[in-house]
Amino acid sequence: MSSPASVANVVCGFDCLGFALSEPCDEMIIRLIEKKTVRIINRDDFNLPTEPKLNVAGASLLSMLQQIEGNFGFEVEITKHIKPGSGIGSSSASAAGAVVAANELLNLRFSKLELVEFAMDGEKVASGERHADNVAPCIFGGFTLVRSVNPLDIIALDFPPMFVTIIHPQIEIKTSEARKMLPSRVSLKDAIRQWSNVGALVSGLQKGDYKLISRSLEDFIVEPVRKSLIPKFERIINESVKAGALGGGISGSGPSIFMLSQTLKTAQEVENVMRDIYSKTAIDFNIYQSEINAEGVKVIQ
Amino acid sequence: MSSPASVANVVCGFDCLGFALSEPCDEMIIRLIEKKTVRIINRDDFNLPTEPKLNVAGASLLSMLQQIEGNFGFEVEITKHIKPGSGIGSSSASAAGAVVAANELLNLRFSKLELVEFAMDGEKVASGERHADNVAPCIFGGFTLVRSVNPLDIIALDFPPMFVTIIHPQIEIKTSEARKMLPSRVSLKDAIRQWSNVGALVSGLQKGDYKLISRSLEDFIVEPVRKSLIPKFERIINESVKAGALGGGISGSGPSIFMLSQTLKTAQEVENVMRDIYSKTAIDFNIYQSEINAEGVKVIQ
Repeated sequence: MSSPASVANVVCGFDCLGFALSEPCDEMIIRLIEKKTVRIINRDDFNLPTEPKLNVAGASLLSMLQQIEGNFGFEVEITKHIKPGSGIGSSSASAAGAVVAANELLNLRFSKLELVEFAMDGEKVASGERHADNVAPCIFGGFTLVRSVNPLDIIALDFPPMFVTIIHPQIEIKTSEARKMLPSRVSLKDAIRQWSNVGALVSGLQKGDYKLISRSLEDFIVEPVRKSLIPKFERIINESVKAGALGGGISGSGPSIFMLSQTLKTAQEVENVMRDIYSKTAIDFNIYQSEINAEGVKVIQ
Repeated sequence: MSSPASVANVVCGFDCLGFALSEPCDEMIIRLIEKKTVRIINRDDFNLPTEPKLNVAGASLLSMLQQIEGNFGFEVEITKHIKPGSGIGSSSASAAGAVVAANELLNLRFSKLELVEFAMDGEKVASGERHADNVAPCIFGGFTLVRSVNPLDIIALDFPPMFVTIIHPQIEIKTSEARKMLPSRVSLKDAIRQWSNVGALVSGLQKGDYKLISRSLEDFIVEPVRKSLIPKFERIINESVKAGALGGGISGSGPSIFMLSQTLKTAQEVENVMRDIYSKTAIDFNIYQSEINAEGVKVIQ
């Protein structure tokens, strides 16, 4: 089982738009066991909890087990490659990978929407909140819009081929801190500009209109308050766009920054731009390059 | 020239989403004249100003004439059927009809986007504001999204066949009053719910997914404060939806209420619902039924 990283809070689409990446991915092996419980085996160095209800994958599977009669459970071996706290959906990869894998063993008894519900219970362990912004694209693949959480309503959007370049500066941003920065109220004028862009972005994605996608990648609400958390944020954005990127912004609640490009070549130039800018700082960083992952979590027998 | 009524502020798409109706329409006849001016001849009983700069069609044409060299102008005979103040784009029909007609005489020298700019100068005469919410669908046809006014960016959306039922209660709502009711700030939570719905509505329109369209027709921001202006508003909405309508809301800034339906049959049942409810009040009303007008302003030679 290969479970991908993902980008949530896609610029104007704060708290609703996300997409899955082809890389990096976590690896997972899952087995049925003869006891109604979940056993977690970590095969990496992140020291994540193995107590199932404190582990994102574990809590997701416990939530699934509650909906099943029968005296069996799951054992999961997890090798994480997506660093926790990077802002590219590390916890979601664990949650989504676990429930998709378990559902394979159960002959696909649950719908994708039900799997998202289970994985949201896992997300709650990581962030204190049942949110679907990352698990939705992991489970549905591609670009998703979470129209509503309660009742859960997820829309898989059409989208044209796009390439993603992501820089992960090795600094820590606590999700709780990033959340505290959000204003509780916003001006109606900014809100209108934001939802006009969300509508335009969805239209651009569905039509495959790259210019429209590019014009719509504006955020008047969240980026202005959060960008100060990420060193060189504006330079990365401006110089990436100069290099041909369609646009981009903060991935999740940061610190990663993602940029979308129409071609692989541009995405590579964006990588050079990012590398140049961050090499001159004292901050360590990783850069990822990826297509948008239309498939989501992938089962490998 | 036949210039249609239109619906702006489509539920969650306040200030950005609108569509053109097949009926009612204004009629217009336009001729070139040998003087750089605009002459307005009203062929109806609405007593609209004939001074061109005070007349919506006149001001739109004056704006166009400013971009043209040459010593000629336009004479327009207008027979309005769309009652001013009804909330279904009466002024926009005048503005859009005039500039599309004039552009025909000029062998289509201006783009649709330029025509919208001229028509917005006409709209300013009626409402004090250069807005494109109604003139955009009149000129582009169908469903449009105004992503931005400055610079002007209009997106023609795909949409599936839909039928519209509109009730126009004969009460007056001053646009300025309706505008004063708008909060200057809104909660971020409501704004997020609103833009999630805008994205979902655009997706539903483009995919032709009626159920998704129906689920997305929710307005958490404007309808809650303005609905009190329109008697029986909630009953109309609730009973129309019970009768099978996809959803609907306030047309423009009211007092008209529009409901969207998938079939003509449902739209007719919605008409019966509206008639039943308003017949029991002391308020006069008109009801219109129409398809969404994919063509917009129509040239009749």
